[in-house]
Amino acid sequence: MKNNSLIKAGERLDDLQCKGYYIIQNPDVFCFGMDAVLLADFVKNKPNAKVIDLGTGSGIVPILMEGRGKGKQFVGLEIQEYSADLASRSVAYNDLQDKIEIVNGDIRNIKELFQPGSFDIVTSNPPYIDSDHGLLNEMDAKNIARHEILVTLEDVIKAASYLLGHGGSFCMVHKPFRLAEIIRLLSAYKLEPKRICMVQPYVNKEPNMVLIEAAKGGKPMVKIDPALIVYNEDGSYTEELLKRYNMIP
Amino acid sequence: MKNNSLIKAGERLDDLQCKGYYIIQNPDVFCFGMDAVLLADFVKNKPNAKVIDLGTGSGIVPILMEGRGKGKQFVGLEIQEYSADLASRSVAYNDLQDKIEIVNGDIRNIKELFQPGSFDIVTSNPPYIDSDHGLLNEMDAKNIARHEILVTLEDVIKAASYLLGHGGSFCMVHKPFRLAEIIRLLSAYKLEPKRICMVQPYVNKEPNMVLIEAAKGGKPMVKIDPALIVYNEDGSYTEELLKRYNMIP
Repeated sequence: MKNNSLIKAGERLDDLQCKGYYIIQNPDVFCFGMDAVLLADFVKNKPNAKVIDLGTGSGIVPILMEGRGKGKQFVGLEIQEYSADLASRSVAYNDLQDKIEIVNGDIRNIKELFQPGSFDIVTSNPPYIDSDHGLLNEMDAKNIARHEILVTLEDVIKAASYLLGHGGSFCMVHKPFRLAEIIRLLSAYKLEPKRICMVQPYVNKEPNMVLIEAAKGGKPMVKIDPALIVYNEDGSYTEELLKRYNMIP
Repeated sequence: MKNNSLIKAGERLDDLQCKGYYIIQNPDVFCFGMDAVLLADFVKNKPNAKVIDLGTGSGIVPILMEGRGKGKQFVGLEIQEYSADLASRSVAYNDLQDKIEIVNGDIRNIKELFQPGSFDIVTSNPPYIDSDHGLLNEMDAKNIARHEILVTLEDVIKAASYLLGHGGSFCMVHKPFRLAEIIRLLSAYKLEPKRICMVQPYVNKEPNMVLIEAAKGGKPMVKIDPALIVYNEDGSYTEELLKRYNMIP
């Protein structure tokens, strides 16, 4: 029997269709999107890996990865107190306290929180929008999740590099228009791009997401995946997309 | 009446299906491929541009670009004496001596050949294969065109940066697995990636070519085009590919 007292006012419970897992979300704050699901799918299976998700929000990425057997122990780091609490409650709701730890902390203080090289995989679905761009009315939770207010792309990449041992893997989802910056920053922190997948809404439309994997200390040779097309011409999901959404390991 | 005495033993004449232009090729040396056609198509129209093609081979890229009205004056630089002669004869065959100049010279001596910032567009379809990779039996013309024997990726990018004025455009076709290196080298020579197009043989196959445009001194924001798919499932060319092959401006 699930503990529904974990769900607070304004929150809702969503079925992840993965090992019977649920997630608690607050639509006023942030709900996970396709980017989080595709990121969890993009990470290669390493059943014994120690994994950390930087800016975990509701905890969606570690919960999905655990559901797919993509690691052994997971940490979700989240700066916003309310989101971290929400994520902790989702972990408890799914009885995953032994597998997933939610830490309320700042990526910029990573050295005070974790030992260097202490993870095998780092994931992140960071804020996409440069704080110089876009209209920003309030310093609210939604804006913090979407804009580089509390954390920049460089902060995330620097932390990932610190957390990974040699050969460790960093997987991130981001916006394609920032690809050149992403590659430069990865390189600056000894993370070599190894795999890139562009996500296009339709076969003839520009990608609106990029999935990128980089290896700590890797050699320069990157595999570009076929573009992942989300919708068929008739608006239905493509078979390829449905495969990524299949949460059964 | 065309001057067929320009064609030598072992050479053949191919119809470019573009403004009645032909090209002289020698199958024992090198014949142009889809990469050259897609590169010529990828370059944006700038009818008044001064254009230089680095490693022009048979001169295919400047001849196609001239045919499409994508510039005003063209230079094709080629290190191999025979190829440069072949290209000059194709230029003469098409009566383009006033528009296209073929120069037999070495990209590595670019400063002795041209003034800095003297071109608006630089194109290149350079050797793709790192000289450390691949089997290399002979130092013949084919190998020189395909492997980084006489010119490296860095030599090409360095020369492109030297030749372009501020805001000038460098367009190159290369192999996707070298994308991270390409972006790093472009950045090192103040060429900011502005547009990338992956070319996939089929919708669900990895790309085997990448087209990339970089601007001298540009700001970091790159447009990723939809992947260009070459073949339909039934093996026929896609409409998108046929559009790129349409040589009528």
